[in-house]
Amino acid sequence: MGKKQGDQTYLFESPPVLIGARAVVGPREAAGPLGQYFDLPIDDPLFGEKTAEKAERRFLIEACNATLEGVGIKNEDVDFFLAGDLLNQIISASFTAREIRLPFLGLYGACSTVAEASALAGFLIDGGFANNVLVGVSSHYQTAERQFRYPIELNLKHKLSSQYTVTGAGAFLYAKKGAGPQLEAATVGKVVDYQITDPNDMGAAMAPAAADTILQHLEDTGRDPDYYDLILTGDLGEVGMQLNAALLEQYGVTLGSRYQDCGAMIYGGNPAHGAGGSGCACAAVTVAGYVLKEMEKGKLNRVLVVATGALHSPLTWQQGESIPGIAHAIVLERQGYS
Amino acid sequence: MGKKQGDQTYLFESPPVLIGARAVVGPREAAGPLGQYFDLPIDDPLFGEKTAEKAERRFLIEACNATLEGVGIKNEDVDFFLAGDLLNQIISASFTAREIRLPFLGLYGACSTVAEASALAGFLIDGGFANNVLVGVSSHYQTAERQFRYPIELNLKHKLSSQYTVTGAGAFLYAKKGAGPQLEAATVGKVVDYQITDPNDMGAAMAPAAADTILQHLEDTGRDPDYYDLILTGDLGEVGMQLNAALLEQYGVTLGSRYQDCGAMIYGGNPAHGAGGSGCACAAVTVAGYVLKEMEKGKLNRVLVVATGALHSPLTWQQGESIPGIAHAIVLERQGYS
Repeated sequence: MGKKQGDQTYLFESPPVLIGARAVVGPREAAGPLGQYFDLPIDDPLFGEKTAEKAERRFLIEACNATLEGVGIKNEDVDFFLAGDLLNQIISASFTAREIRLPFLGLYGACSTVAEASALAGFLIDGGFANNVLVGVSSHYQTAERQFRYPIELNLKHKLSSQYTVTGAGAFLYAKKGAGPQLEAATVGKVVDYQITDPNDMGAAMAPAAADTILQHLEDTGRDPDYYDLILTGDLGEVGMQLNAALLEQYGVTLGSRYQDCGAMIYGGNPAHGAGGSGCACAAVTVAGYVLKEMEKGKLNRVLVVATGALHSPLTWQQGESIPGIAHAIVLERQGYS
Repeated sequence: MGKKQGDQTYLFESPPVLIGARAVVGPREAAGPLGQYFDLPIDDPLFGEKTAEKAERRFLIEACNATLEGVGIKNEDVDFFLAGDLLNQIISASFTAREIRLPFLGLYGACSTVAEASALAGFLIDGGFANNVLVGVSSHYQTAERQFRYPIELNLKHKLSSQYTVTGAGAFLYAKKGAGPQLEAATVGKVVDYQITDPNDMGAAMAPAAADTILQHLEDTGRDPDYYDLILTGDLGEVGMQLNAALLEQYGVTLGSRYQDCGAMIYGGNPAHGAGGSGCACAAVTVAGYVLKEMEKGKLNRVLVVATGALHSPLTWQQGESIPGIAHAIVLERQGYS
């Protein structure tokens, strides 16, 4: 297996190309420091729909359709639609798949889903099974709050370590050929559980998984962190980001100033959003928005995206279980960069 | 793309081999007509655990460990664990992945998950990314009832079209080489919605998806139904099975006596189980139990497994949405059969 390097990493022989992507976000995300990078800011978080769930779905449908339109590709030329979200039975993804009528593989990796889906897109294209794979993920503050915590109408106080679910959706079109950054590698994570039990401290629950996957990726590839211009975790937020960096220091790995976290970036440290953003859309819109546009400008050349997910449910928490985490990593490189 | 045939079907160039599988079932399933085929019948549906959710997980862990032990393979030689279940945030799969410590890709295809995972195992192995892929899915009557309908303690009357969630888990080890049936092809389904809105009539909601995928598979491969000894839908039950056959008749396709449904088979038409079994484990234990053992004996040579999933959630139903369905198909063939 020449494609597998080390224990959990895959270097693509004919790296798929990320030929198009769109970040659709709500007003809070558009007002943050990354606002300029997002393709489609939507003023109304309900997107004209009657419920938050229908709104989340609308964000995802919009992101998928805009991505396909942007690259000028027809639905019938897309081989697979890989999608997921945080809601029970991934209804945002499934109902979006109903609208766009593509062969559909539903995924659940919590907030790591964008990297899980991208890795699978890489396997399908590099494996010779697909020319074009559409990836889409979404999250919504109102749907996530009422499902995982409490209805927002209760106006409960959040802890400082609480994170704020990003309202939005990101879609990505990976192709066998075309112009755009290459999907150079993927590292598929294992579930890691440090026995964190506080659902208001998800960053701490996910940080050990991020550290585990980053260590594995570096070991598998023989790379140092400075191989990358940017190492970007998904949604650890400010608390989890510090924990991840500290955990890696214990293993002699210093991420330094090249390390950023989508959750910590997206609201610019505004304390109204606790420790930062979270949700499947957090990493997705940051990559589709910020990362891709900076790569286009030549400001970023090699980026390691490590999307992190907390794999609990309200019920596992009620039954006294801890919160297991997972992180999957993908490498995006500018074409022609050496 | 030589591997893609038609619009949604993939013929594997080096077909992965299903080198091991285990069906772990509860007492009702063990008492049914397929009882003799199941590897590990468990007398206690709670499997010694305090909650049904922990029990479901235990069934899945047991199926995975027994499968790995049965083929004598170590965890570190397994490249991926692909798993899913019906519970919110697929907690059975995620917490099982925490125990068995393999690189994990979480899936959600409702009751179609075993075919979704098997197709992906095929892509990963035939694509050159893996030597061994473990697939596992589970369901449990008590966890599904209280999540999707009502706590069983309420003792509500069911409709005749209601199905009974199978308690159990199936695990499968697909490998690049070895002895066992070959995974010859896979057809990845699209979401199909005939506007069925009754969650007590899931067979009707899923039947159009099964018909769609079977038609597509036959068209893509140029095969007739009689290419197969057995065409086996996942969990349409008696009502959905008849609908699927009738829908296909409209397109000139007669499945005839080679057509069976796991849901209709598993409880042998016992009216206490309504229209039959359902749940991710329904197709999984029927394939791991009945199909594989009949293939081993040479009684079945070519089997088309069409696992079906209903992609709704209690919340989409409450919000007035219909129940979209999906079906994925895989082809299992005895090695050396021509």
